Amino acid sequence: MNEKIAILIEQVRKNCPLVHNITNYVTVNDCANAVLAIGASPIMADDISEAADIASISSAVVINIGTLNKRTIESMLAAAKRANELNIPVVLDPVGAGASSLRNETVNKLLNEIKFSIIRGNLSEMSYIAGISSSTKGVDSSEKDSKNDAVYVACCISKKYNCVAAITGAVDVVADNNSENIMKISNGHAMLSKVTGTGCMTSSLIGSFAGAVEDKFLAAVAAIASMGIAGEIAYKNAGEIGTGSFHIAVIDALSKLDEPIIKEMIKIEQITG
Amino acid sequence: MNEKIAILIEQVRKNCPLVHNITNYVTVNDCANAVLAIGASPIMADDISEAADIASISSAVVINIGTLNKRTIESMLAAAKRANELNIPVVLDPVGAGASSLRNETVNKLLNEIKFSIIRGNLSEMSYIAGISSSTKGVDSSEKDSKNDAVYVACCISKKYNCVAAITGAVDVVADNNSENIMKISNGHAMLSKVTGTGCMTSSLIGSFAGAVEDKFLAAVAAIASMGIAGEIAYKNAGEIGTGSFHIAVIDALSKLDEPIIKEMIKIEQITG
Amino acid sequence: MNEKIAILIEQVRKNCPLVHNITNYVTVNDCANAVLAIGASPIMADDISEAADIASISSAVVINIGTLNKRTIESMLAAAKRANELNIPVVLDPVGAGASSLRNETVNKLLNEIKFSIIRGNLSEMSYIAGISSSTKGVDSSEKDSKNDAVYVACCISKKYNCVAAITGAVDVVADNNSENIMKISNGHAMLSKVTGTGCMTSSLIGSFAGAVEDKFLAAVAAIASMGIAGEIAYKNAGEIGTGSFHIAVIDALSKLDEPIIKEMIKIEQITG
Repeated sequence: MNEKIAILIEQVRKNCPLVHNITNYVTVNDCANAVLAIGASPIMADDISEAADIASISSAVVINIGTLNKRTIESMLAAAKRANELNIPVVLDPVGAGASSLRNETVNKLLNEIKFSIIRGNLSEMSYIAGISSSTKGVDSSEKDSKNDAVYVACCISKKYNCVAAITGAVDVVADNNSENIMKISNGHAMLSKVTGTGCMTSSLIGSFAGAVEDKFLAAVAAIASMGIAGEIAYKNAGEIGTGSFHIAVIDALSKLDEPIIKEMIKIEQITG
Repeated sequence: MNEKIAILIEQVRKNCPLVHNITNYVTVNDCANAVLAIGASPIMADDISEAADIASISSAVVINIGTLNKRTIESMLAAAKRANELNIPVVLDPVGAGASSLRNETVNKLLNEIKFSIIRGNLSEMSYIAGISSSTKGVDSSEKDSKNDAVYVACCISKKYNCVAAITGAVDVVADNNSENIMKISNGHAMLSKVTGTGCMTSSLIGSFAGAVEDKFLAAVAAIASMGIAGEIAYKNAGEIGTGSFHIAVIDALSKLDEPIIKEMIKIEQITG
Repeated sequence: MNEKIAILIEQVRKNCPLVHNITNYVTVNDCANAVLAIGASPIMADDISEAADIASISSAVVINIGTLNKRTIESMLAAAKRANELNIPVVLDPVGAGASSLRNETVNKLLNEIKFSIIRGNLSEMSYIAGISSSTKGVDSSEKDSKNDAVYVACCISKKYNCVAAITGAVDVVADNNSENIMKISNGHAMLSKVTGTGCMTSSLIGSFAGAVEDKFLAAVAAIASMGIAGEIAYKNAGEIGTGSFHIAVIDALSKLDEPIIKEMIKIEQITG
């Protein structure tokens, strides 16, 4: 299985999929650079007059609600609907779901109107989506939610929305459509939570893999493992210096990732739902 | 007094206050990373449908008009009003005040409708707010304004608006409500003006301290000193390399700051108004 | 000629022109830091209520359509028109021209209503502007367009719009008004295409030089050569580490550029149209 996942990065680097990101203005630069570092090509276009057009020439669409507003919500819907019509995979990052009525209503609207291939969030956000009481405060996962079991929450979502559901945190869990396969990924480093946008970057990496790889479950696993491995390498190279250097080292590591590194460093465990 | 200020960073790191920033898209990523580096948790939410909701769960609100527009001005007012109702401290960064009618009108509207705990700007911007003839050209402080005395300007504002007023520049001045206490801070490095957003980051750090520390005057002093000390450390570590590495080294230094470093490096002087 | 171009950076550093950028939120922070690194002063103001006011106090205006929307298109037009009235140079970066109807219509509207001093894009974007069949896919130049000759395309645009036309890529070409002078610049490194925003930064550097230097053709050549040289230095210093460190090293190199470095490293060739 390690080989099967490690090889996927070569598909991204070979196909260089165009990844359309409608995302937040806080971490958008990092998302673009992460997509480039992994070998894909980013585009960000959030006006309603072109969001669907750009989706139609893309290999994947990533919807991230980090700094959503009325204008961009309409563009998210338009881009994602066009992608659905054309069988282009759509990834959802429900940043801060549970933290405000606007975010909750938007996530519900998106889930009602769009078929997502992959949904990725932290445990607080995903607990909200699963309909399990959550305690989102802001955009970081709440400690109180650790009582919720990530495997259970991921399975709820994958069954309810017939999608790949990925929860990232200290340990990452990915459940494929209908929870037939579940994978735990133990890569990563706690310092990733001290840099803004590592979750957003992970979602854009998922879009990059999903745009190049047929199996969306493996695409999500490969993307999340890539981010985790990059975090480990970055911590080794720059963690002692501080979070600024660590941030840059994460992009460095992503840009140097290849099949042998992933094969050697990936820590995955298949479990039954 | 050095000890009294140095200890405050531990309150930020312990309480991890949620800091809501309605800020500009130029430097927003740095603001988020600075807030994380100092031990607080950032959130950015500028849609009118959620700005007040997010304010209500935050420990501090930072209003930065760097790239204001009609949509976000309404959100600034809504978030800050809710914060006022709930006694959550609100920080104003009047970026470019004096440079355009829109900025001037917005600052006046904000000052009329909102009770700010702390206002921080450069001498040009603060001279405008104090009603003293200024020569703001763009968003950088004008040399022509150096004729205005920072202590005088800070005192005018602190009395007029019953708030903590902070002017940052070669030397920083902080005056508490009604100018009863005034502090000069001599930390910092000139290279900080060669990286965009160091002023914005300082305001977001002020929000981080204000969200964790009862005394808003000391919170502002601690935040401004932290940025100055980080600039000194960053210059020592990376100043010779260039402004890109210096920029990253500032975040590194913020993330490594603690009570002993601040206690050793802080350069403050109490003066009478 | 090398000396004539190399000396221009000293004019930028001495005059510190204010450069107004209406640009995209993906790379705006890098644009601001590049402008500061080269010795100019950036401002970003995209609300219709102040875009023209800010243009009127600026030494150059840069219009970049990377994440255009209905709101900012109006501001671009207002700022550029005011600049035209005041004989302030205006630079166009037609990001993604050819990739969507909105981008095409906006570029056409801008070209109809505004007199640009300098237009800079990649070969795909510039082929679209020249009216030559192009195959823009996303915001990166398409390989299919390499059949188009950059010299030919630049000359078409410089004659059609009576402006300086610059095409950047593996080799850069700059044609002055009416194609009387044409320059090839062979500086740069392929890794620049692996960091988002190096094209946008180049356009903001062009604005920085255009705001300080009378001859807009030489201003464009100096700016593009500066970016290319910075890319070479950055690759030497950090290319092996990864694209994150390379990105930072580009800003470092820009901040350390001076006349002797440019004079020594610039690779230009005058050709006839």
